[in-house]
Amino acid sequence: MINYPSGVNPKRSPKTQASKNVSYGKRGMGLEELINEANSYYLSKHLAVIHKKPTPITVVHVDYPDRSMAKITEAYYVQPSTTDYNGVLDGHYIDFDAKETKNKTNMPLKNFHQHQITHLKNVLENGGIGFFILGFTTRSEFYLFPASILIKIWDEALRGGEKSVPYSIISQQGFQINSKMIPSLDYLPALKRFLKYLNV
Amino acid sequence: MINYPSGVNPKRSPKTQASKNVSYGKRGMGLEELINEANSYYLSKHLAVIHKKPTPITVVHVDYPDRSMAKITEAYYVQPSTTDYNGVLDGHYIDFDAKETKNKTNMPLKNFHQHQITHLKNVLENGGIGFFILGFTTRSEFYLFPASILIKIWDEALRGGEKSVPYSIISQQGFQINSKMIPSLDYLPALKRFLKYLNV
Repeated sequence: MINYPSGVNPKRSPKTQASKNVSYGKRGMGLEELINEANSYYLSKHLAVIHKKPTPITVVHVDYPDRSMAKITEAYYVQPSTTDYNGVLDGHYIDFDAKETKNKTNMPLKNFHQHQITHLKNVLENGGIGFFILGFTTRSEFYLFPASILIKIWDEALRGGEKSVPYSIISQQGFQINSKMIPSLDYLPALKRFLKYLNV
Repeated sequence: MINYPSGVNPKRSPKTQASKNVSYGKRGMGLEELINEANSYYLSKHLAVIHKKPTPITVVHVDYPDRSMAKITEAYYVQPSTTDYNGVLDGHYIDFDAKETKNKTNMPLKNFHQHQITHLKNVLENGGIGFFILGFTTRSEFYLFPASILIKIWDEALRGGEKSVPYSIISQQGFQINSKMIPSLDYLPALKRFLKYLNV
């Protein structure tokens, strides 16, 4: 680890910048922070090993102001080729991304990206467990939603179908995540219900 | 994806800088490039979904020279908390790191880091498949070596034991990776022999 100059925010990134004003209930955390908190909890309790992947960045220039320090002075964000989260639960390969909306009645498909859909298709094809954690922030409701269903809806949209997923489908075909004290977004019970449903 | 100024090397990072003079046979690739090539091949042939994780970087400052471009002008490398590679093969969670040495008789333990050992312990505990790809570059020999054995040797070294792993142990208890035309470092057959050995 390195020491940051005082006053800088080491967590600053396009994603956290965009979501920094979103808050959920008493904790004031964004969806990414809630998932990171849950993952840290699961790791510490030996329940699962799930990490957020680092944001891919292409480094063009590095300065070495002293011999123990590398300061990157030119770099660019590059498009990821996978989802943000993966890991292992009871031997199963787990892979997901997280999306949130302020809409009450649907989750717009513009929140999703083709590379995430393609990656999750590959994951399912190779026997992995793929899903999305979908947050309706105005409702304070979160669902684990199977990737297989979202992939179908995405492919239908490409052929001219609906450009959003109705709340009714997500709440009926998803697995609701119940909030807890620690961790706030305790998605593991919903994931275990999903695994039971998949019969794996 | 972004366009790079001409002459810049978008793959530049501490790791690739350090290994850029290492070459293997006719291909002139470093170990990381060989593994990336194999992973791309497996993905395209629907054999496995295994990716290298991006190098974790903490972004402190971003400029926006025009509205479609974000240029990172201050950032720092941070220590990873996992290994470099993970993914899914036939539903199994796969997790590994890669190490190479010019030594002929042993692999020094200084090539490994505590966070990699700790992460692989967590992976094994949760039913994942963990290993290292170990390269003896002078011999042009590569082995898939079970994480469970390396963890034992690491823990013995912390208690005063040997600070390296003898070549004889790696070649006898590892699973040799045979070179091929495409991909050059075809580690999937060795991984399948390892899975068979584990009886999973």
